[in-house]
Amino acid sequence: MTKIEPRTLAGFMELLPNEQILFNQIKETIETTYKKYGFLPIDTPIIELSEVLLAKAGGETEKQIYRFQKGDNDLSLRFDLTVPLAKYVAKNYGNLSFPFRRYQIGKVYRGERAQKGRYREFYQCDIDIIGDGELDIINDAEIPSIIYDIFTNLGFEDFTIRINNRKILNGLFEEIGQKEQSEEILRIIDKIEKIGKEAVVEEFEKIGVNSEQINKIIEFIEIEGTTNEKLEKLEKLNIENETYKQGVKELKEVIKNIKIFGVPEKNFKVDLTIARGLDYYTGTVYETFLNEYREIGSVCSGGRYENLAEYYTNKKLPGVGVSIGLTRLFYKLNELNIIKATKRAVAEVLIIPMLENLTEPIKLATKLRKMGINTEIFLNNKKLKAKFKYADKLEIPYVVVIGEDEVKENKVTIKNMKTGEEEKIANDEVEIIKRLEGVNIKID
Amino acid sequence: MTKIEPRTLAGFMELLPNEQILFNQIKETIETTYKKYGFLPIDTPIIELSEVLLAKAGGETEKQIYRFQKGDNDLSLRFDLTVPLAKYVAKNYGNLSFPFRRYQIGKVYRGERAQKGRYREFYQCDIDIIGDGELDIINDAEIPSIIYDIFTNLGFEDFTIRINNRKILNGLFEEIGQKEQSEEILRIIDKIEKIGKEAVVEEFEKIGVNSEQINKIIEFIEIEGTTNEKLEKLEKLNIENETYKQGVKELKEVIKNIKIFGVPEKNFKVDLTIARGLDYYTGTVYETFLNEYREIGSVCSGGRYENLAEYYTNKKLPGVGVSIGLTRLFYKLNELNIIKATKRAVAEVLIIPMLENLTEPIKLATKLRKMGINTEIFLNNKKLKAKFKYADKLEIPYVVVIGEDEVKENKVTIKNMKTGEEEKIANDEVEIIKRLEGVNIKID
Repeated sequence: MTKIEPRTLAGFMELLPNEQILFNQIKETIETTYKKYGFLPIDTPIIELSEVLLAKAGGETEKQIYRFQKGDNDLSLRFDLTVPLAKYVAKNYGNLSFPFRRYQIGKVYRGERAQKGRYREFYQCDIDIIGDGELDIINDAEIPSIIYDIFTNLGFEDFTIRINNRKILNGLFEEIGQKEQSEEILRIIDKIEKIGKEAVVEEFEKIGVNSEQINKIIEFIEIEGTTNEKLEKLEKLNIENETYKQGVKELKEVIKNIKIFGVPEKNFKVDLTIARGLDYYTGTVYETFLNEYREIGSVCSGGRYENLAEYYTNKKLPGVGVSIGLTRLFYKLNELNIIKATKRAVAEVLIIPMLENLTEPIKLATKLRKMGINTEIFLNNKKLKAKFKYADKLEIPYVVVIGEDEVKENKVTIKNMKTGEEEKIANDEVEIIKRLEGVNIKID
Repeated sequence: MTKIEPRTLAGFMELLPNEQILFNQIKETIETTYKKYGFLPIDTPIIELSEVLLAKAGGETEKQIYRFQKGDNDLSLRFDLTVPLAKYVAKNYGNLSFPFRRYQIGKVYRGERAQKGRYREFYQCDIDIIGDGELDIINDAEIPSIIYDIFTNLGFEDFTIRINNRKILNGLFEEIGQKEQSEEILRIIDKIEKIGKEAVVEEFEKIGVNSEQINKIIEFIEIEGTTNEKLEKLEKLNIENETYKQGVKELKEVIKNIKIFGVPEKNFKVDLTIARGLDYYTGTVYETFLNEYREIGSVCSGGRYENLAEYYTNKKLPGVGVSIGLTRLFYKLNELNIIKATKRAVAEVLIIPMLENLTEPIKLATKLRKMGINTEIFLNNKKLKAKFKYADKLEIPYVVVIGEDEVKENKVTIKNMKTGEEEKIANDEVEIIKRLEGVNIKID
């Protein structure tokens, strides 16, 4: 038979089991944290009607969509979890309690140009808090405490949640009479870390921003100091624009409460250059950086929006949320050796039977499983050496051998595969569990 | 602005949060059980190259595929988790340890005709044990013990795992000289419960099976009695065919070991009419029925196959596995009122602040979360009544009110929302937790 080469598409992550175990651990940490804050799970289809999914999209996004015809239907694969959320809330409005706090973790699809570290299928882990008509600004202060918990739970210490408010930027542009070009100006500001101040000034000149306006922008983005100093300086910039003032007020309120929410000063800061996309966000915006690995880019971003679902409903649904691009994050952390797949097995104990009658090995496995220990029985008829080799390759931490002798004596031989220690002990699950160092016990 | 109707495609399940919580609980029970037996997780893309995914498919399956072009690529959405497993094992052969025990839980896609209870996007929860060259028959006996654990853990008692062996059927057809028509005969046998014996005999006659052959088939499928009696009768049928004999031997071996694996007699039985599809399975086959709800059909099916990945590799990879069609199972259990969404919230405690300064409420929430309690703070500025209404609607079991009075006295007011009991107690997480009946405490 002619064989077909078993291959996976470029841009689609497919991990070996040891990496998958690690990936799942990270995913679970994120999900557990979301649940700790009372967020509700939803799960929307990966395929939607194009008319529904692309109600708002256009330009770059639309080009990346996986879109196709099936029967009479024009279908598309979801490219984020926000549009499906908007559809979901509009559709189920009468059945939801507001503020509606939901999390969703799932795969999304973008037909990006294939390149290293860019994925066409990737997990997003989103939370959003949706208000019915209104949503208190204090919600914007809770979000960073959730981000803080997640990255702390993942073992990180040196990370910064950067916070800004889009109203401040918008107000500034209104003030200097550059509202029309605000998107363009934001795009240029965004590049300041990469290309430097001089190049930024040149780009401003190119698009016709005059020197007085440029000075005002530069004065603004160069505001430095502690968080409190920055907030003070923002107030002293002599900008009378109402949107600007509102933005500063909101930012102050958010910062005050972030502290109350217990996020340490070293883990957040005001960053006036952050804009997060160009039209969606209308208030607070967040980006999160692992400081030792700035090259990864933001690992958790989001913000406040005025109206989640205006394409579907007349209800005003303001919200605030963030998203973690888990697939890319995992890839980068792995590539930089920041995380390491340490487990090759799910089983904590491998029972090796060395006899015909499997009654005793199976009984023991059942007891250990009842005590919450993931337990595998080696079920193929091989030599002892081959069975141990299997445990070795999978790095299963403990092996329990049961042979004819052990059964006669009602004992088992337990081997710690790390230290090589071997011991013949009573065939008793409690005695065995005593020897399992570092294994979590959770009784059913 | 013209609004687009926010709708979800027919055949795509989208649940309200309370149903989603229940769905996730069931999914987690299945996953936890798979892990208890040491199965390794994998996660393969939903999109694959059509050439790879459809290496084997044909006929009915191919018609249902979501297939489309993106750039130069002819792509398809996976329609099961077996073909991706075959690709995965063939591709990663050198990096896997055999027997390779893997689980995968994920969505698959089939463009079925839309009808009630039929899904086009649905979860499958699969386990498979893949051998390298060979795989001991004892593995076929472990599978039912896993099925047994899952449905017991899901709260079912009255279910039966029906077991057969394809070799017995194949051998029988060879013996009576009807090998060529075996697929057709199986299709007819499959209908016996629906259409009855006489109609089955008529159908046999229609396809040219002679009366002697029909008698042999009927004699075979009418074998009754206890499991042991059935096995004895199979041996006494005077069939000399080697495949048949091998099948009976395997079935005996599997049955013997299923008992050792601790599956109660009432939860499994030999059912000689089960064939499971027509060409894939080559040995043991399983179907699982909830006896009070036979109309649901099999809730967990699978079997033994000779060669997992022959379309991709020359390696011989025999395996055995089962699959649970979770989406359909959930739909049916829900429709029949067998399961009920009892939780509307993920939060076990709602903290209601009735003051300006949120320091105390937030501190308490942080402490409760550290003790493993999912805790939400009501963050919008509403009247007490509106805040309680939110807890009521979401059925959050406990509300903790912190107002100015409480802060002064260093107390909180805790209300059991089920009983209506209200108590002012010390603002102390341990005191609070003592009052949380039926809430799981798991310290981080």
